[in-house]
Amino acid sequence: MSKLIEIGTKIICVGRNYANHAKELGNPIPKEPVLFMKPTSSYLVNGGTIQIPSSMQHLHYEAELAVVIAKKARDVPESSAMDYIAGYAFGLDMTARELQSSIKAAGLPWLLAKGQDTFTPISEMIPKSAVPDPHNLELWLKVNGEVKQKGSTKDMIFSIPFLVSHISSFVTLLEGDVILTGTPEGVGPVKPGEKITAGITGLIDVNFNVEKRSVPVSN
Amino acid sequence: MSKLIEIGTKIICVGRNYANHAKELGNPIPKEPVLFMKPTSSYLVNGGTIQIPSSMQHLHYEAELAVVIAKKARDVPESSAMDYIAGYAFGLDMTARELQSSIKAAGLPWLLAKGQDTFTPISEMIPKSAVPDPHNLELWLKVNGEVKQKGSTKDMIFSIPFLVSHISSFVTLLEGDVILTGTPEGVGPVKPGEKITAGITGLIDVNFNVEKRSVPVSN
Ligand SMILES: [Mg+2]
Ligand SMILES: [Mg+2]
Ligand SMILES: [Mg+2]
Repeated sequence: MSKLIEIGTKIICVGRNYANHAKELGNPIPKEPVLFMKPTSSYLVNGGTIQIPSSMQHLHYEAELAVVIAKKARDVPESSAMDYIAGYAFGLDMTARELQSSIKAAGLPWLLAKGQDTFTPISEMIPKSAVPDPHNLELWLKVNGEVKQKGSTKDMIFSIPFLVSHISSFVTLLEGDVILTGTPEGVGPVKPGEKITAGITGLIDVNFNVEKRSVPVSN
Repeated sequence: MSKLIEIGTKIICVGRNYANHAKELGNPIPKEPVLFMKPTSSYLVNGGTIQIPSSMQHLHYEAELAVVIAKKARDVPESSAMDYIAGYAFGLDMTARELQSSIKAAGLPWLLAKGQDTFTPISEMIPKSAVPDPHNLELWLKVNGEVKQKGSTKDMIFSIPFLVSHISSFVTLLEGDVILTGTPEGVGPVKPGEKITAGITGLIDVNFNVEKRSVPVSN
């Protein structure tokens, strides 16, 4: 994880930003971005271990392009939104899908399904200059070597400049903040003992172990 | 706002922590705390102006006791939870109630109803040593001088040590993080031009203006 991401104070996530992923979960195609937050305490650096809470059997992976904010952004128009981006990273939006389903049905907030420690594995930042077209990147993810997700950022419903502009009309984005831009189709469960390898073709790759979290008996 | 709150990276909020408030919104009494997040970019310091987004006619106020975390807390038992608290503050959990109602009905996340800029007005921190019993504080709030909320923290469903312990079993709490512990009954709307005065009887008081947000035409 880069220094820049470390100083950030929020992660804003976009749900259902790829039509085929919205469909696979039985959700409607959104007219506006579905936005939610994860705490920065959920970051996990490359090579680390994703911890499945003791009450759960598995988590779902969601491979996503992360956008890293360069400087304070508020009411930024789409036309200059790219000026507020420092770079990109590969991120996973780990999700306790069963918990998410039950809390959605009850109209409850998503924090526990999305925001627990290690639920946001993330790569180093790739500077913007190394990414000629962020809307033409291949995201891929394997579990134990088997391809589970492969999708292109060209299939995003809401573009990166639109997202920066839209989000900044509600909340001030600050240096180091991250936008997780949604996942293509192919999400599914990972269980203890499995290994995730993933990345952006030609740019960066990451690997993470998956284990059951062991809670200290007393401390 | 104290230096400590400024370095914090998250605000964890407890919904429905007072039975009479859950009832006034027609919500069930929760068996577990309802937890959600607000970004720290939503803080507003004492004397500031709460901005109602242009698409909205009013916001609801929720007067709450804020708990400020002293040091890293993970899997903290209830018996030592108070050791992780630096102090308390008075906070408002400003809420776009109509938006919250529609997103709850759709199973969508709460961010836009709860997390926009200026939606978390907060006082200076009161050191823990100045608060003999945080479960016996009177929270009060007036709009244009008229009492709207008056309640005691003794009516919390989930106690402060329980909340610190419970939340720290899901997410790591860090120095300066804030827990907003829920609001007693009496929530209601504020409109542009109105003034909120509020506080904790005998400890601290705050005042905030309310205006419609004016969005820059271009920047
Ligand atoms: Mg996602
Ligand atoms: Mg945060
Ligand atoms: Mg509240």
